[in-house]
Amino acid sequence: MPYSYLSHLHCPKTNVRYDASQIQQLSEVGAPLLVDYDLDALRSAWKPTDLLGREASLWRYHELLPVLDPANVVNLGEGFTPLFRTPRIGQDLGIDDLWLKDEGIIPTGSFKARGAAVGVSKAKELGVRALAMPTNGNAGAAWSLYAARAGIEATVVMPQDAPQITRLETAISGAHLYLVNGLISDAGKQVAEAVAAGGLYDASTLKEPYRIEGKKTMGFEIAEQFGWRLPDVILYPTGGGVGLIGIHKAFQELRALGWLPAEQPLPRLVAVQASGCAPIVKAWQARAEASEFWPDSRTVAFGINVPKALGDFLVLRALYESDGYAIAVDDADLLAEQRKVAELEGAFVCPEGAALYAAARQLREAGWIRAGERVVVLNTGTGIKYPDTFAVDVPLLQPGERLPR
Amino acid sequence: MPYSYLSHLHCPKTNVRYDASQIQQLSEVGAPLLVDYDLDALRSAWKPTDLLGREASLWRYHELLPVLDPANVVNLGEGFTPLFRTPRIGQDLGIDDLWLKDEGIIPTGSFKARGAAVGVSKAKELGVRALAMPTNGNAGAAWSLYAARAGIEATVVMPQDAPQITRLETAISGAHLYLVNGLISDAGKQVAEAVAAGGLYDASTLKEPYRIEGKKTMGFEIAEQFGWRLPDVILYPTGGGVGLIGIHKAFQELRALGWLPAEQPLPRLVAVQASGCAPIVKAWQARAEASEFWPDSRTVAFGINVPKALGDFLVLRALYESDGYAIAVDDADLLAEQRKVAELEGAFVCPEGAALYAAARQLREAGWIRAGERVVVLNTGTGIKYPDTFAVDVPLLQPGERLPR
Repeated sequence: MPYSYLSHLHCPKTNVRYDASQIQQLSEVGAPLLVDYDLDALRSAWKPTDLLGREASLWRYHELLPVLDPANVVNLGEGFTPLFRTPRIGQDLGIDDLWLKDEGIIPTGSFKARGAAVGVSKAKELGVRALAMPTNGNAGAAWSLYAARAGIEATVVMPQDAPQITRLETAISGAHLYLVNGLISDAGKQVAEAVAAGGLYDASTLKEPYRIEGKKTMGFEIAEQFGWRLPDVILYPTGGGVGLIGIHKAFQELRALGWLPAEQPLPRLVAVQASGCAPIVKAWQARAEASEFWPDSRTVAFGINVPKALGDFLVLRALYESDGYAIAVDDADLLAEQRKVAELEGAFVCPEGAALYAAARQLREAGWIRAGERVVVLNTGTGIKYPDTFAVDVPLLQPGERLPR
Repeated sequence: MPYSYLSHLHCPKTNVRYDASQIQQLSEVGAPLLVDYDLDALRSAWKPTDLLGREASLWRYHELLPVLDPANVVNLGEGFTPLFRTPRIGQDLGIDDLWLKDEGIIPTGSFKARGAAVGVSKAKELGVRALAMPTNGNAGAAWSLYAARAGIEATVVMPQDAPQITRLETAISGAHLYLVNGLISDAGKQVAEAVAAGGLYDASTLKEPYRIEGKKTMGFEIAEQFGWRLPDVILYPTGGGVGLIGIHKAFQELRALGWLPAEQPLPRLVAVQASGCAPIVKAWQARAEASEFWPDSRTVAFGINVPKALGDFLVLRALYESDGYAIAVDDADLLAEQRKVAELEGAFVCPEGAALYAAARQLREAGWIRAGERVVVLNTGTGIKYPDTFAVDVPLLQPGERLPR
């Protein structure tokens, strides 16, 4: 049995096929390429019980990942993150069956590790020696560290005001790191120019086809962890939207394999954005196929400060196909939820993850989330990486001073 | 089959038995209590293949954990952390078969989550409503967050110069947090005074019997992940030493169950300390039974800045019984190793974890680690939590400026 059932790539705009044995970036019409597998062959060769006893990482799904030779896998223990019930915040929200999928429990403390692990592994397999990318922080940190483990040279450009800790992670990996006194779009232009000069693999979001494959494993895990019965609703903090595209793709693949109950509808996917940067919400409200650039974007949830995503049309497609929703929340609300989740459940989620609770509250109050539904919140990273979004005022005692009671 | 085979507690100094169905703190002679199980009954009822398909957390070993009723388990997805090979740093050290057990991939980003999960769960089972503890940072953060999830009130006192991020984690949980302009020993005195006033469970290191049980699961996992063939050497950064005590206990329990090859010696355990705080090393060199207080202790590896550990005699016992070693390393060396591990393996380990590589280098050069031996480095937390130990100097570009190549 082959390690991977990778077949080819295709452009989701033109359906033109591309060769997966060669380095590919965008399609000829500038769209992200999607990865196809030989699902027909896999259907008869693979079943859920084959997963029993496999390692607790995303590589347990290697048949549906693009790496052909296990020797090319670059692994720091990523994936198979915890999924657990959160009854106390659930009660507070009026959602009894509320679960947290916690992507803070992963190398680099952010779900970006999934895309980096699979993306870097496949880059290694394709013979890439040097890659470059712009980043708002977490993706650059993850790709730099995985590239270091793979022996691939990384060049990363990030805005000066990206989270400080991601700068440290990128630098300690030995990557060539540059800050730009501007936005991720400025960093993107600088990377594009360097790539055009030759010799660099463009690892920008969705300009290589494989990070979606890493991110889709979140969908596989949710399905497996629930015993192949999917939840009713999944909330996802949406910047570039790669995870949402990936989760939707994962469910399509599992359905094609016959691993999901035929009668069960797929989960309604919810794209959550910040009020200060909500291009997907605006497009979804207009039932548009693509989003427009959001000027002067601003939010404390730095990871979802993406004014125009390259894969916006795929995100919107996933929302329409799943009968989902798109919703924006205020920074003040998400920061209040962050504290509440820590106080009630002991989970220190990142601001992007906290936004999901603010959204869930609104959707439950509006009745869109119905009583009794099973709802999954996908926290994309640990709160530890964002020390500046949460201020504390702690009493200072002198040695020998009695504790106030 | 019962969920737990908990039997009783005993004092390792006097062998007096204590009742595990009551709240217990130290023994009558002031020693930490150890937990015993009915291993005879378990031997015939439980086998390694029973673990197949169990959840990927430390609770997969519930038969050998002290919680009697699964309803009392306070779970954030802790444990079953990755164990992976690190060939490039291994080659650099001259240790071909070098592995990293990465405890940064765990709730709160530190192995303290294990002790907190089991300790808080058992406290909940025993009816504890409020606990208090001094901390150097990570333990306080972990116990506060698990206590929040359990609905237990936490009071935490930490030195003013403990890592800033652990202060945030503790505060956001809703714990009563106080800083002290002093050392953890000052915090300890303040907690002891508050406990003496009544109404508080003393959750100080080893003053409650159950955190060792959480930490020992690292030993179970290393054994299971290697297919029940133990490595030759395990290096462990030693402050309070609870993990080392726990790992040693785990191997004894597995041996008693007959799960380990009878002919195989147990791994040689190495306690690694900082040159600026090395009481265990000093005691071990003198073949002493206990350590002496180390005055004016100092190291960048804050988690191992423990001048006198309550369980020092148990740590030393584990070193002697396992034919192990105790070694101190300089701050400059551990900081250099931290960078090297990130550059070669993509793992951003904490300073305490980095100290292990400095120790491994010395022990290999001295021949104590022999060619061909399998060596495990136990990184106790993520480097992300210590942004101040690593300085970076990154070029700042203006938008439109070309990247230097």
